[in-house]
Amino acid sequence: MNEERHGTRRSGGPRKAQEIFDATLDLLAEKGYEGLTIEGVAQRSGVNKTTIYRWWPSKGALLGAALIGARQLDFTPPDTGSLTGDLEALLHTVVTLLTTRPSSDIAVSVLGAATQSPELGAHVREFFADRIALERPVFDRAIARGELTEDTDLTLLMDLLAGAAWVRIVLRQLPLGEDFVARTVGTVLHGARPRT
Amino acid sequence: MNEERHGTRRSGGPRKAQEIFDATLDLLAEKGYEGLTIEGVAQRSGVNKTTIYRWWPSKGALLGAALIGARQLDFTPPDTGSLTGDLEALLHTVVTLLTTRPSSDIAVSVLGAATQSPELGAHVREFFADRIALERPVFDRAIARGELTEDTDLTLLMDLLAGAAWVRIVLRQLPLGEDFVARTVGTVLHGARPRT
Repeated sequence: MNEERHGTRRSGGPRKAQEIFDATLDLLAEKGYEGLTIEGVAQRSGVNKTTIYRWWPSKGALLGAALIGARQLDFTPPDTGSLTGDLEALLHTVVTLLTTRPSSDIAVSVLGAATQSPELGAHVREFFADRIALERPVFDRAIARGELTEDTDLTLLMDLLAGAAWVRIVLRQLPLGEDFVARTVGTVLHGARPRT
Repeated sequence: MNEERHGTRRSGGPRKAQEIFDATLDLLAEKGYEGLTIEGVAQRSGVNKTTIYRWWPSKGALLGAALIGARQLDFTPPDTGSLTGDLEALLHTVVTLLTTRPSSDIAVSVLGAATQSPELGAHVREFFADRIALERPVFDRAIARGELTEDTDLTLLMDLLAGAAWVRIVLRQLPLGEDFVARTVGTVLHGARPRT
């Protein structure tokens, strides 16, 4: 894991930024966005309220920083040597995020709140822009290996993979089946239509 | 539109079921699941509270019935003559649902609430099971035309298509681009990997 990925280094912040981010995400998972307050974060993290306000003037700004900076959501892109292996690893990460507590509660709370609060919405957009930037090397290597063409829409591929997991787990609330990851990646890479 | 699709016929209910369902979904869009009450639905629809309780003993049960029975969410599967055309029409329906008010507010509120309330979660599962049953003829015709094989996982195809729209619109909150629907269906049918 690259030290530069940590929030304190990347986005600036007080010395106990990780404790603040952890408290922010824990409270979000427990109480939802409505129940998240800077006062509650101060209490949980043991950091003075005024210190938190000095760095993040609102709970939207604080949650935005926590999404990108928190260890809990830290992310290292896979490098398995093949596009199929890398995409399966990426999809496994999404599946784990959505089927494990507290990250599944965090994901659903953030999603619901992001559509209500324009400020948080902007931070969620930053979070996803950050993720796709981290995922880009996977696609660059696949293009170099000749597994994808240069005009591939990598955002669309990630939307298809992550979206299938979201719909199956969060919306349909159905079990995944043990071959979900392999089938999903296989369909996105090779298509549903039979080869002629 | 098939009369059997209407909620009053399909799930039973009082004479003014459509007005009750409309009021339920409108209030959900305005106030979220927390703010939805049977009292509020009674007031908005002009139907006596005790009448509503007689048919639906809780707001979870009422919302479940409204999801499947409401005209606002009524759905007729496409029949364009080709799988590509049908899937593009299905994806257009999802995109319209997620980019138009109040249906986009309804969708996000239901999603957030379904994960918090096990009772509503069960009704949301029913809603999606109902949708996939309505979509099945699209896939049966494609198999009959030789466009798909019999072992095609139609739920996975719908999860990929609808999921890409959810992630792009609700999570990333990015514009779709005018060719989003065609590119997404094209990738799911033909795959991202270049043909060799």
